[in-house]
Amino acid sequence: MYERTIWWNGDHVEVLDQRLLPHEVATVTWRRPQDAADGIATMQVRGAPLIGVAAAHGMALAMALDPTDLDGPAASLLASRPTAVNLRWAVERMVAALTPLDPGQRAQAARRLSLTITEEDVAACRAIGDHGVSLLREVHERTGRTVQVLTHCNAGRLACVEWGTATAPVYVAAQEGIPVHVWVSETRPRNQGASLTAWELVQAGIPHTVVVDNAAGHLLASGRVDLVLTGADRIAANGDSANKIGTYLKAAAARDCGVPFHIAAPASTYDARCPDGAGIPIEEREGEEVLVFAGRSIAPGRSPARNWGFDVTPARLVDSWITDRGVLQATDLPMLDG
Amino acid sequence: MYERTIWWNGDHVEVLDQRLLPHEVATVTWRRPQDAADGIATMQVRGAPLIGVAAAHGMALAMALDPTDLDGPAASLLASRPTAVNLRWAVERMVAALTPLDPGQRAQAARRLSLTITEEDVAACRAIGDHGVSLLREVHERTGRTVQVLTHCNAGRLACVEWGTATAPVYVAAQEGIPVHVWVSETRPRNQGASLTAWELVQAGIPHTVVVDNAAGHLLASGRVDLVLTGADRIAANGDSANKIGTYLKAAAARDCGVPFHIAAPASTYDARCPDGAGIPIEEREGEEVLVFAGRSIAPGRSPARNWGFDVTPARLVDSWITDRGVLQATDLPMLDG
Repeated sequence: MYERTIWWNGDHVEVLDQRLLPHEVATVTWRRPQDAADGIATMQVRGAPLIGVAAAHGMALAMALDPTDLDGPAASLLASRPTAVNLRWAVERMVAALTPLDPGQRAQAARRLSLTITEEDVAACRAIGDHGVSLLREVHERTGRTVQVLTHCNAGRLACVEWGTATAPVYVAAQEGIPVHVWVSETRPRNQGASLTAWELVQAGIPHTVVVDNAAGHLLASGRVDLVLTGADRIAANGDSANKIGTYLKAAAARDCGVPFHIAAPASTYDARCPDGAGIPIEEREGEEVLVFAGRSIAPGRSPARNWGFDVTPARLVDSWITDRGVLQATDLPMLDG
Repeated sequence: MYERTIWWNGDHVEVLDQRLLPHEVATVTWRRPQDAADGIATMQVRGAPLIGVAAAHGMALAMALDPTDLDGPAASLLASRPTAVNLRWAVERMVAALTPLDPGQRAQAARRLSLTITEEDVAACRAIGDHGVSLLREVHERTGRTVQVLTHCNAGRLACVEWGTATAPVYVAAQEGIPVHVWVSETRPRNQGASLTAWELVQAGIPHTVVVDNAAGHLLASGRVDLVLTGADRIAANGDSANKIGTYLKAAAARDCGVPFHIAAPASTYDARCPDGAGIPIEEREGEEVLVFAGRSIAPGRSPARNWGFDVTPARLVDSWITDRGVLQATDLPMLDG
């Protein structure tokens, strides 16, 4: 069993290949910077914090190959996926740190900074857990029963290096002995909920139940959810938050049912340069991902499909942002900048 | 190509086997009343209006077999699926009509009434189309462009005998030359949207696009939907409406985005005996239906699943009920009784 999702193995980077889970646990090796860009684009690794960390490793592989070329690999990594701002954050941070250095020093410095960014992610996720657990503890102390959490997609340790964002408060709660059960929505079209979140909850021994994405409204309306916890791929300056497609449906229904909806994310997910959700680029992927499942077509051959990867939840539907710097309201978010 | 979803073939009932679509167009033959109950339970036929019509045919098969036993087949048919009230409506109507008759007359009378109920369904759906098309025409006249409809599950002709409920206004609009495009949400776990609605829209030549259920919020928030049209399985006296799981999520997001949400259903879907949504029985099916897709497990072997088939959309989120008796508001619904 691998404790982390990405690590250095000699001169190469090794990542847990998330396309194979939950059926197979295997790694893939990145030897060149293009391997990192391709690995991010093809979703060997995914999850906003992790693709930031992965991009930092990609820049380090690039410096080992040709320390005079910062712009080429930076552009290639930036183009690999559009929505999660953590990717841009990590690439810009690497470029800013490496540019002033003599090319002869860049390979070692880049590798060191990739390790720093990795450890910072672990620490940020742990801090999210420590701050967020207060919300679960409050429910348990008030009701005396198991805390029911609904999540979407995978904002777990597989989306990060360790701990996860939305799952960090759940893992910390379990450590503290607070009973918790997670409703895992499968997250079509790629099923990251059923295949990744359920897998890591099995590993961690956390009680959970898989449901189709459609079930969220019934769960919320029937009193089966105490709080909704999701991650985010980009938080605009005003708090509008992009996350996996389907998140906004849960937020709208949670508000309609009076159930709190929280977003868990590290500071690197905040984009002060983006005033609101309208400015967040929404990735559109191949319709094939919708129409073909496990090699089988689900619709008639002449039916087209469209496949947006993300939606935006307006800030007004978010009860709080659980960050590594505390549980914040929209007006507090600017403290995440820089 | 079959024009209808159910018909008499000599002494037997033949139905289009909806479990095989869109990959195979085949029929199954019901010879005994239990075939009808099993066919409804296993979803050879599905859709609230159609399972009412199918139950009427099941009662007719029962009368041909043993005209002295009304209660046995009635109980077996009533137990086949719990949520759609059309089933109870049809069985009770058959029992009420047959009880006063001499057993020697019941077989012929039952068959005749099953045909009447069939033709009434066709006429009711056509009337829903004639009433509902006004909503699409209004959008087209106001905007001058293609009317964008979002639907869920299959409330099309496959859910009825012909025309459908939610699709009837779309088919009538197409006949009248009003340009219309339908967003088809796939409808996990059984994909009735992708496999049935897309199939019948292909047959009818209606432009459409398949999306995952998760995409509805993004479609609504990005101005890509003029109105949401779904069917219903049971409308309570106050207008709370049960429909395929996931409908309530669309209704909540539609309201949040200011997009009208309409339910299309015949009078037989109205349950005056049920005061509100809390009284509607929600079918729960096997978790296997969620966990295994196209023969492939989507989650780790140790993850359980739950699988409710329906949710309830509160009356306050429904802009109108498009029925065979007109486009109604909640206060008008009692006119559907009897």
